[in-house]
Amino acid sequence: MSKLYRFGVSLDKNLINKFDKHIQLGNYKNRSEAIRDLIREELVRKQWTTGGDVAGAITMVYDHHKRELVNVLIDTQHEFGKLIISTQHIHLDHHNCLEIIAVKGKSQDVQKLASKLKAQKGVKHTSLSMSTTGKMLQ
Amino acid sequence: MSKLYRFGVSLDKNLINKFDKHIQLGNYKNRSEAIRDLIREELVRKQWTTGGDVAGAITMVYDHHKRELVNVLIDTQHEFGKLIISTQHIHLDHHNCLEIIAVKGKSQDVQKLASKLKAQKGVKHTSLSMSTTGKMLQ
Amino acid sequence: MSKLYRFGVSLDKNLINKFDKHIQLGNYKNRSEAIRDLIREELVRKQWTTGGDVAGAITMVYDHHKRELVNVLIDTQHEFGKLIISTQHIHLDHHNCLEIIAVKGKSQDVQKLASKLKAQKGVKHTSLSMSTTGKMLQ
Amino acid sequence: MSKLYRFGVSLDKNLINKFDKHIQLGNYKNRSEAIRDLIREELVRKQWTTGGDVAGAITMVYDHHKRELVNVLIDTQHEFGKLIISTQHIHLDHHNCLEIIAVKGKSQDVQKLASKLKAQKGVKHTSLSMSTTGKMLQ
Repeated sequence: MSKLYRFGVSLDKNLINKFDKHIQLGNYKNRSEAIRDLIREELVRKQWTTGGDVAGAITMVYDHHKRELVNVLIDTQHEFGKLIISTQHIHLDHHNCLEIIAVKGKSQDVQKLASKLKAQKGVKHTSLSMSTTGKMLQ
Repeated sequence: MSKLYRFGVSLDKNLINKFDKHIQLGNYKNRSEAIRDLIREELVRKQWTTGGDVAGAITMVYDHHKRELVNVLIDTQHEFGKLIISTQHIHLDHHNCLEIIAVKGKSQDVQKLASKLKAQKGVKHTSLSMSTTGKMLQ
Repeated sequence: MSKLYRFGVSLDKNLINKFDKHIQLGNYKNRSEAIRDLIREELVRKQWTTGGDVAGAITMVYDHHKRELVNVLIDTQHEFGKLIISTQHIHLDHHNCLEIIAVKGKSQDVQKLASKLKAQKGVKHTSLSMSTTGKMLQ
Repeated sequence: MSKLYRFGVSLDKNLINKFDKHIQLGNYKNRSEAIRDLIREELVRKQWTTGGDVAGAITMVYDHHKRELVNVLIDTQHEFGKLIISTQHIHLDHHNCLEIIAVKGKSQDVQKLASKLKAQKGVKHTSLSMSTTGKMLQ
């Protein structure tokens, strides 16, 4: 970890009031820590749009009674097998499954996989949680 | 528009260097403008919080060599044990861990857990991917 | 010792070839002797079944290209949904899936689930690793 | 899948009676299917003793309040990082964690990792579920 660097920021008073309330709810000790996290998240998002190596999770909810869907989802995952580390499957209730796919690879490929899963008829919800391999933020 | 408010921020030198490069590409005039946008976006993201039951995943990246951090993270997860179904842990490299926590419960509680994990010093990145328990979409 | 009983067995030719090679290395005189030992060991393994609450994992390997199998496995898991915490699915290669089901409940129920999964045609290997919920050992 | 091969087996009458009861409880349709599974399991066990490529799961129960233990366990897992696909962590109760480590690699290495985890003071139970990469059983 390199040394700390201090600088001044000028912001609209209204905005900073709302931000202070947000910080408090978020358990942050001070504004610097909260801003540090915003900056890191911004850099991670950028890595996802510029095509670097990323890690993250694809979350899906679907009804496992749709036979063909189950097979298409598992086939798609094997097709993109190199991106997928492992998949966590949770039986939410008699109908619904929550599936969380841990992924690592080129951001374009991961986004392609997420799109393909999302497009399947019967998938109720898909979301891509963009994270990082952590190397960039060391 | 209310008047401007000025305050100081302390950040890791490496991080601020990367942020400056990012700002330049984004055509921002100065750091204050870039930080203002990050804060606004964050506040907007928080607005969709409506309560109700959700299922989803909290994704974290951290360095497992930070001894105290590892213990705080596991304690926090046990404290919110009722929300957590199971956690998938991936050893990304010698330093970095990717942890994906499958959660189910009231959206406020899930967000509280995510905030608490995020605020821990040493956690490099957290992201909350909220989905539905599927019932609403049946 | 009771009298001998003779019956016929039908097995995949590939499998019996591998078994014959294995028997030879093990110095068995014939297949009947080798199968007798496998059956005895299996019955001994079942003896430790004592009831009570257990936590543990059911590990399965199967070929996801067997369409009907994939559906039967997911249905069986939902049928025993109360026992299952979450399932970790790993895409071993183009054909083979490793599925690890985290379970918690009455030992008889867990064994019933394991047996039902094991008996499905197309499941290549199942193993039940029973552990404790930790309470007994506190 | 190759064609079926039929052969006769001679067994002690008492033993086959017990086996028939066992088969019934296990939902098998006939003796051939049950014997097929016993043979496959035996071949998988052999692969583990002769040093082939294997896949499986290491299951552990431990108390996360033992600070040093948590750190030793995570360090050991990173040390053997190449063997580990992902780890499923379940918060059983306020004290106890169930951790299921999905592994793939040389059988000696996997067994070495299991022994090292088992030997840690504070780990209440460890069990190694030996499975296969599935290739041998195709």
